Order: sequence, then C-alpha cells, then structure tokens
Amino acid sequence: MYSEQELETVHSRIGKDISKHIGTTRKLLMQPSSSQQDIGIDKCAALVAKMYKDAGCEKVEIAETKGNPIVYGECKGDSDKTLLVYFMYDTMPFNEPGWNHPAMGAKIVDMKLPAGKVKAIVNRGADNTKGPLATFLNSVDACNRSVGRPPCNVLLVAEGEEELGSPNLPVYVKKNKKRLSDADACYFPYFAQDPDGCRTLMLGVKGVVYFELKCSGKSWGRGPEDFAVHSSGKAWLDSPVWRLVHALKTMTSDDGNRVLIDGFYDDVAPPTQEDEEVISETAKTWDPKMAKKAMKVSRFMIPDTDREELIRLYTFASTLNIDGIWGGWIEKGSKTVLPHKVTCKIDIRVVPNQKKDDMMPLVRKHLDMHGYKDIKMTEVDSGYDWCRCSVKEPVVQAMIRAQESFGGRPQVWPTSGGSVPFYVFNRILGIPFTMGGIGHSDLAHSPNEYMVVGGNKKIAGLSDIEKFMVRFMSEYSLT
Amino acid sequence: MYSEQELETVHSRIGKDISKHIGTTRKLLMQPSSSQQDIGIDKCAALVAKMYKDAGCEKVEIAETKGNPIVYGECKGDSDKTLLVYFMYDTMPFNEPGWNHPAMGAKIVDMKLPAGKVKAIVNRGADNTKGPLATFLNSVDACNRSVGRPPCNVLLVAEGEEELGSPNLPVYVKKNKKRLSDADACYFPYFAQDPDGCRTLMLGVKGVVYFELKCSGKSWGRGPEDFAVHSSGKAWLDSPVWRLVHALKTMTSDDGNRVLIDGFYDDVAPPTQEDEEVISETAKTWDPKMAKKAMKVSRFMIPDTDREELIRLYTFASTLNIDGIWGGWIEKGSKTVLPHKVTCKIDIRVVPNQKKDDMMPLVRKHLDMHGYKDIKMTEVDSGYDWCRCSVKEPVVQAMIRAQESFGGRPQVWPTSGGSVPFYVFNRILGIPFTMGGIGHSDLAHSPNEYMVVGGNKKIAGLSDIEKFMVRFMSEYSLT
Repeated sequence: MYSEQELETVHSRIGKDISKHIGTTRKLLMQPSSSQQDIGIDKCAALVAKMYKDAGCEKVEIAETKGNPIVYGECKGDSDKTLLVYFMYDTMPFNEPGWNHPAMGAKIVDMKLPAGKVKAIVNRGADNTKGPLATFLNSVDACNRSVGRPPCNVLLVAEGEEELGSPNLPVYVKKNKKRLSDADACYFPYFAQDPDGCRTLMLGVKGVVYFELKCSGKSWGRGPEDFAVHSSGKAWLDSPVWRLVHALKTMTSDDGNRVLIDGFYDDVAPPTQEDEEVISETAKTWDPKMAKKAMKVSRFMIPDTDREELIRLYTFASTLNIDGIWGGWIEKGSKTVLPHKVTCKIDIRVVPNQKKDDMMPLVRKHLDMHGYKDIKMTEVDSGYDWCRCSVKEPVVQAMIRAQESFGGRPQVWPTSGGSVPFYVFNRILGIPFTMGGIGHSDLAHSPNEYMVVGGNKKIAGLSDIEKFMVRFMSEYSLT
Repeated sequence: MYSEQELETVHSRIGKDISKHIGTTRKLLMQPSSSQQDIGIDKCAALVAKMYKDAGCEKVEIAETKGNPIVYGECKGDSDKTLLVYFMYDTMPFNEPGWNHPAMGAKIVDMKLPAGKVKAIVNRGADNTKGPLATFLNSVDACNRSVGRPPCNVLLVAEGEEELGSPNLPVYVKKNKKRLSDADACYFPYFAQDPDGCRTLMLGVKGVVYFELKCSGKSWGRGPEDFAVHSSGKAWLDSPVWRLVHALKTMTSDDGNRVLIDGFYDDVAPPTQEDEEVISETAKTWDPKMAKKAMKVSRFMIPDTDREELIRLYTFASTLNIDGIWGGWIEKGSKTVLPHKVTCKIDIRVVPNQKKDDMMPLVRKHLDMHGYKDIKMTEVDSGYDWCRCSVKEPVVQAMIRAQESFGGRPQVWPTSGGSVPFYVFNRILGIPFTMGGIGHSDLAHSPNEYMVVGGNKKIAGLSDIEKFMVRFMSEYSLT
C-alpha cells in the first residue's frame, strides 16, 4: 500500500496534470469505436495501446482475436497484489437523432444536475465506458510519474467487442490463463455516483442474450414472399407482420411486463439473506425520484413507495425487452403495401441462476409450441452470463474502504441491471471482482451521453475520481 | 363513332408513330413524380401539360390546388358524347431496395411471362399509372394526326395526389362542376391483362383509409418518454413497444385476417344478385395460379379450389393491413435499448356500404375501449370511398364491345382490390365510369414495376393498346 505521503504525492501530480488528463480523455472519446458498425476499431485499439505506454506500462500488446483486438498491458506495482483491470474500448453507435452536441465532439458543457452545477464532457462512450478507461489510465500515469509505480500490480485487458457480447474475450482469457492467473481480483472502473451525488456500489451484473426474430412470407410459405405487394392483396393474402404481432403477444402479459414463456423464470433464484439485507439497507437511502429524473420518466412499473420492491425488480427481474422492430414502409407518407417480412430485436437479461444459453432455446420452444415454427431466430450477440460477488470479498471491502475515505459508505446494490462480461474472469480465472468508483456519468446507449469532469461538493470531478482510483488500489494492496 | 376506314387510318398512324410513342412514354416515366416525397411534381405537371398540347388538345391548363396541381385538357371529338378521362401523374416512392434495373431508368428489357416473351419498360409508375396516361395521350395524338379528332370529346383531368388520397380532387371537381358536367361518363385507362394474357374488367374500386398509430412513453405517461433508455431499465419500466404489440393484437384474430374491431363489418353489404352472377361467371375462367405467380406467393389465405370465395374475398373483404411498423434500434447489431416510441402505418380498404369516414372513429373507439386512449392516431391520407358501376351501364358496355373486338369478352370482376377516386366523379358529377383496357403491367408499389410495350399473341403490345383505346372511344360515342 501507499503511505499517506505517497498518496499525497500522487494527488499533487494529479492536480498538476488534470488539464493533460482531460485532454487524453477527450482524445480517446473522439476516436470513434463503434463495434456494431465496425467504425474506428483498429485506430482506437492503437490509441489505447499508446495510452498504456504513455501511462508507464512495461508491457503492451495488441492481441489479435477472431474479431476486434484486445489491448493488453502490464504495470508492476508497489505490492505483490495483482489487479486485473477490465476495460472496453468499443461503444454503441452514435448516429441516432437527439444529440444536443456533436456525438463525437467531446464538448465540455455546463450542466445542471440535481446535485448542482457541473462541467461535463458530452460524447458517445463518455459513460459507457471509454471515460472510465481514460480516467483509470490517468491515475496509473500519475502514480508512475510521481511515486514511480502504482500501489499494486495491474494487468490491463481492454476489449473492443463488449457491445457485441464479448465473443472473443473468453477465448483470449483461456489462452492467456497462465499469465492472467497472477491476478487476485478483477476491477471494472466506472463512475458510480447518481446525478444527486449518491454513491453506489454494485455487487454484480445481469447476463444478457440478444437475438432477432424474423417473420417472412418466404419461411412461412404464406403471404408475400419476395417483395412487399400492393396492400389490396390483404383481402386474400396472409400477412407476416400480423403474424409477428400475434407471435409476440403470446410472449408477455398484456402489460408487456410478465414473460409468459414456459420455464422462463424456472431457474430464477430468490434473493439470498445477504441480498435482502443489502436491499433493505439500500432502500433506506435510495431515492426513486433521482433515478426517474435521469431517465426522464414519470413513473416506474410499480409505485415509488415500494422502494424495496423496486430495487428487487431492478436487481432480480429477468426481462424480455424489444429493442427494435421494423418492417414494410417506414418512411414518410402512405405507401400501401403488404410487407413480406418483419424483424424484431429482443434482449433478455438473465439473473441468478438462469443460464444465458438456456434462453434462446426456451423462446424457440415457445414459438414452436404456439405454431410459429417458421419464425426465424438469429443470435445477434454471443451474450453474457450473470455474475455476482459477495459483499464480504476482500476486493469489495477494499472498494468500500476507498469509498469511505471519499465521503462515507456507498449505497450497495446486489447487482446492476446492466451487463459486463465478468463471468469470464470469475468462472475461468476463479477470481472475485468489483466495479465502480466515484464520479457521475449517464445516458449509456442514449443521445447526450456524458461524464462529469468538473465536479462540485456532491459529485466528484475528474481529479477526485483519479485520486479515488489510486486510493482503491492502495486499499486493495492491503488485502 | 369512327367508320371502319377512319379506324384503319388511325391504326396506320399508330403503327408509324410507335417509336415516338414509346419515346414519350419513357420520357414521362423517367420524370420523377413521387407525391409522398414531393419529388419532381411540378416538373411532371408541366410535362403532362406539354403532352396534352402535343397530342392536340385545344385547351390546356395547369390548375393550382392547395396541394399538387391538376392538369386539365380538352379535345373536341367526332360526336357529342363526352368522356372525362381521369389520370394520376404522381407515383409511389421509388427508393426501396430490390430493383433489378434503375427505378427511374425506363429500361426496355426482355421479360418472360406465363403468356410468353415480351418486351417491357421497367420503371416506377409504368403500371400505376403513368404508363396508361402516356398511352392514352398517344392514342389521342394518333387520332388528331390522322382523322383530325378523336371519336368523342375528351376532358382530361390528371391529378398529382392520388397516392396521397386525392385530398384536392373533390375540391377541384366541385369548383369546375359546370365545365366537367359536360361529361357523360368517366374513364380510367390502365392495362388490364393478367400476365397470362387474361383480359379483365373491373366494375369498381374499394375505398381506402390510411393512418398511423403511435405509442410513446410521452403520451402514455409510462416508460421512457424522451429517448430510448438502456434496456436494463425494462426491469422496472413499462415499454411502449410491448404496449403497441398488445394493442394491435386486439384488432385482429390470431391469424391476422379477421378484424375484431366492433362494428368494423357492420355496414358491409352482401354481394348483390348481379355481383354473384359476375363472380360465378368470372370463376369459370379465372386462374388463381397466375395471380399467385404475379405476386410470387405460394398460397392464398384459403385453398385455390374455392375460386368463387377467393374472388369474393378480393372484391368484398374489408381489410385492416399493416403497411409498416418501426421503433427503437433497427440497424445492424445489438443496441440494447428500451425504445420510447413506436409507430405503425395501417390502411383499411372499405367496400359497399362502408363509409371511409367511419373507419378511423371505429378504430379510435376500439383502442379507447381496450384502454389505449394514449395511443395517437394520425390520418396520413384523406382517403377515398368505394365506387361501383353496374355492368349494364352504356360506358361499361362500350368497354366490353371494344374488348370483344380485341379477342373476346373480358373476365368481369365486381371490383378491383385497389382504390381510385372515382367516387369523386360518381358522387359529385353523378356519372358512371369504367376503367381498364388491354395490355399488361404489374408490381404497383413494388420494385421492378413494369409495363409491356412489345407484346405477343396473348398480351397486347403498345400499338394494340392504343388501337384499343381508340376503339373504346368509338364504341362509347355510339352510346
């Protein structure tokens, strides 16, 4: 661990270098890296490798995979503890409407949050998660430039396919198991403060499966098969769009919230005693209003008054979500056609003890049983399994201690509603993990994604976030 | 009426001018005129006016409306009978995928049809209905250049908003009622042979209503309201997409073919005795296989063996068709989002004695009664009412006689499944109408729309179609 004086030295370095750090962060954000659209991936991998070197990593490799490269780096630290730090350098696409500033312009703007005024960088990936990637490297850079080494050894693994379901990460980890087994724990840096400043710590992630359902006249053998025909044909022809609508409606309750697929919830484990304690504790301080404000929604599925149940939903509900649906004439005006095909993108989030590999077969079986054998199902992403870590794990306790030194114990959640491929490290290397940090960012996958760089009393700015990361490594080196 | 010698003179002229006629047809086709997208409308109106003049019309006007102009022309004929010829110079959009030749290239290609080899022009509007427009003007041109006048007076009314539901045509007709009341009947030229050469005559058209349903978090007050949020939110947020799916499913039977909206079929009149006779006669010669071949479908909603019922469906079924549906992430890959809105385009075809103005209120009432008051409904087109004409009408009998002189009595259908705004002339001017001709074209609203110009023994080529149109005018002048 660092002495208090060493921490002071690093903090001072961070203070001096903060403009440079904002610069490197903006540079990384502005480099496109949309894995869905295969835009800028190689350039971004090269930039990340350069950032590793600039931050003082001894060993840097751009490892080719069957898909996008993985950028690996090593940095010797001040203790024999080794942290595997997982990053993703890919992002969601950035070409949707609704951006108030250029999606790739990394503009620094004034922003008014429930916690007060801040300065934030608006850019795709600022929240998810090139912002945290750059910030962590800034903290390592500061360690190397001041004390000469970080508090612990770090192995850096940055993949470029997280948004594709990390298909090649397990392969890479298995192949490099010997080297990566030096790690005692895994860490995923991100900014975990709510817009009101509330600091949260997630003990896990949900798994995710993503696929498309396609109904077409061709595979059905009814209705138009080769092209959309004149809509007068509806009088004597079947419609693939109506068919998909009726197939979909069998999959959920009328409100769209309860999944009616046989066996869907069978493996869902009830919250453990520890989970319930965590939920009960969290419900004391969690403010549903703030969560709604961030998403700009008027109401949750259930009343706000039942905070514990809301937290239980967010953390324990396995969901079937329509991400997108399209078919036929979707432009302006009235083209009167009977479409020959329609497609629907669906994601399922899996929770303990569901298995992601079980989910598509369950949906397939459901469709078959309801007479929809012709509806095609295509996996879009290879998906993740869920992953959990006990609050008692030393690496989690190190995270909590670091949090306490920056403003008290964080609100602990059994899991995030999102998905990160921790199961890869957890199941292949058998190591525990933790995630998060301080600071605030939001709007992952949405327009106007942002990260706070200039903070206030309630929300950490970039320099405090970096200091926190150094503190966390130091606490971890003690475990 | 023309004498046989005059007919001979015109036919000879058509034979000499056929290359020029193909040229003017291609020129008109290649001029974009997509009313949905407001592309090329004014240029096309000017070109149609020029074609009127070139064909020998005495009076030509481009009449402004609140929307696209109407091109009016008059040509004095050989009798005191006056035919109002209705055209549309607008087309559907032409930018969908699937074209094997440029959608606006008017390429002349070899084509193999069930009736044998032909030469066809492939272009948006070739079938629907700039091809027939040009062809009719060619026939008038030939009359004026040979005999000196057509067999009857013609009033030409070409509108540029048919694909928008002809919102300004009724206004125009009311405003010009005095002048247009000279007409004894109305005619809509098109190529009415099937791909096997079967000649058909439609005694009417269905009406049509076109609207959008939109479900959004904003109007619902549940789920995401301002943007698509991260799909982890599905755990505690409602989904506008699921809502629309469940709203839609209430509107039809599980197979999508029977409309379940209360009152939807209430006003549907059963076929009359005359209708049943026409159907029974038509069923003797109509070949379902040919119709399926043209649309490239494997099967109709009901077995082919029940020909009468198939014809009854096509002519008497009131339909609720989804033309398009879209929401959320509809591009490549897996953006995991919970969409904040979803839209669906729907057309309803109305038959005797439904009223198009009743249909949207019925849908609205249905949605309200099922608890979907928040789902927005927007009229996209002003729509048409249905229109029918007895087979006994003199103008229809003239059409049948003209057909007989070109290869026997046509197959008569009580109505087309499509929609043309004849109700405007029928109800405002109180005149009967007929439609069609010989020749073949197909794929209205679809890629690779075409019209045959070089025919064979079974399918008329352009010169025969033009001769037919002259013959029809001549027969009509006798009535």
